[in-house]
Amino acid sequence: MTPGGRRPDDGDRYKAILETAARLICERGYEGTSMQEIAAACRLTKAGLYHYIQNKEQLLFAIMSYGMDLFEGQVLAKVRDIADPVERLRSCMRRNIELVTHGAAKEVIIILHEHATLTGEAREYIDQRKKQYVRFIESAFSEAVKQGQMRPLDPTIVAFSFLGMVLWVYKWFKPDGRLTAEQIINGMVDLFFAGLAAPGAAGSSSATVLSLVPGVPTAAGSEKP
Amino acid sequence: MTPGGRRPDDGDRYKAILETAARLICERGYEGTSMQEIAAACRLTKAGLYHYIQNKEQLLFAIMSYGMDLFEGQVLAKVRDIADPVERLRSCMRRNIELVTHGAAKEVIIILHEHATLTGEAREYIDQRKKQYVRFIESAFSEAVKQGQMRPLDPTIVAFSFLGMVLWVYKWFKPDGRLTAEQIINGMVDLFFAGLAAPGAAGSSSATVLSLVPGVPTAAGSEKP
Repeated sequence: MTPGGRRPDDGDRYKAILETAARLICERGYEGTSMQEIAAACRLTKAGLYHYIQNKEQLLFAIMSYGMDLFEGQVLAKVRDIADPVERLRSCMRRNIELVTHGAAKEVIIILHEHATLTGEAREYIDQRKKQYVRFIESAFSEAVKQGQMRPLDPTIVAFSFLGMVLWVYKWFKPDGRLTAEQIINGMVDLFFAGLAAPGAAGSSSATVLSLVPGVPTAAGSEKP
Repeated sequence: MTPGGRRPDDGDRYKAILETAARLICERGYEGTSMQEIAAACRLTKAGLYHYIQNKEQLLFAIMSYGMDLFEGQVLAKVRDIADPVERLRSCMRRNIELVTHGAAKEVIIILHEHATLTGEAREYIDQRKKQYVRFIESAFSEAVKQGQMRPLDPTIVAFSFLGMVLWVYKWFKPDGRLTAEQIINGMVDLFFAGLAAPGAAGSSSATVLSLVPGVPTAAGSEKP
């Protein structure tokens, strides 16, 4: 399934439309943004906009697909091949918070905020991509439990605790606030991984975790590029 | 500040209107719900609805105020006087997850989802009530650190990690799903408090925490009613 209604050679223009529409929808919500307003912000007539976009729901779907591409490229693809499951999760949390705290994330915010707006096949498709991420976290965690590195909690509760901590950041993070993205990353990684560490597991004892105070780079810096 | 535009003796009718409007807004979003639809669902004319509600934003504000009342009554008021700060936080997490997983929470979901929709004074007022909750968590945590029960992480990161885990539940919890609210509560309490426990602190060592597997009631059961 690919976003329809566009010509391949209109790629740059199309991407610029998605960016502009994402900014408006992020500010005003999906229902609060009209196609007329999106066209005007893109300096297009409404008819001109419909040259690129079939309809408003198709536009939302295209933005969410683009957001999932961003997320998968900047988070999942970068950590998927890390052999150690704890390092994989740690690096994943780091990169996910980076994505949410950096300005380019409006498409990701729309995925989070308009989660119930899409319908039918389009919703099914985005939901499947989201579920793959939940399964990725569950399975890295289960692997770490098998290896004796983490305690045997319920993998789904662990995955959604991870996601809740990390994704909620978009609601409260302020780029000019007291806490930097790096401090938030270090604090959350510390809290979350200390909470899951098996007693006495190598590299994840309380003593090790205690040394990860905000501002000090974590072992996640050693991830593969 | 109280929700305006209503007669005191219309209280029951007014509350029923808020309930109905909250259900619609929860399903369709604020921008996706018209006053006409709310009136119809309340079996009122639009003019009849405006007898109770000044305008749509006033309605949203009234729903959010009611949601904050619910939250403060069912969570904050019940745990505020627990002397031990760790028990206070533990009980708070338990009660907050209960609120989010139980059907009556549509007003709370609207507070979470429409966080950027209100404007001006009304928004300021709701934001202040939310900030009081963040400060409550921060200060209970700081107290626990002072007493040597918890590790000295940044209180704001700790508070928003707590809130992220707990409030994100509204996005994924299914009443007929595999996990019960009780299992989610026990898993999250276990993970979060193990992550914060000071090494060797009484009642919060890894060994104690390990015994809190899902399904087994936690020490939070001992809270004051």
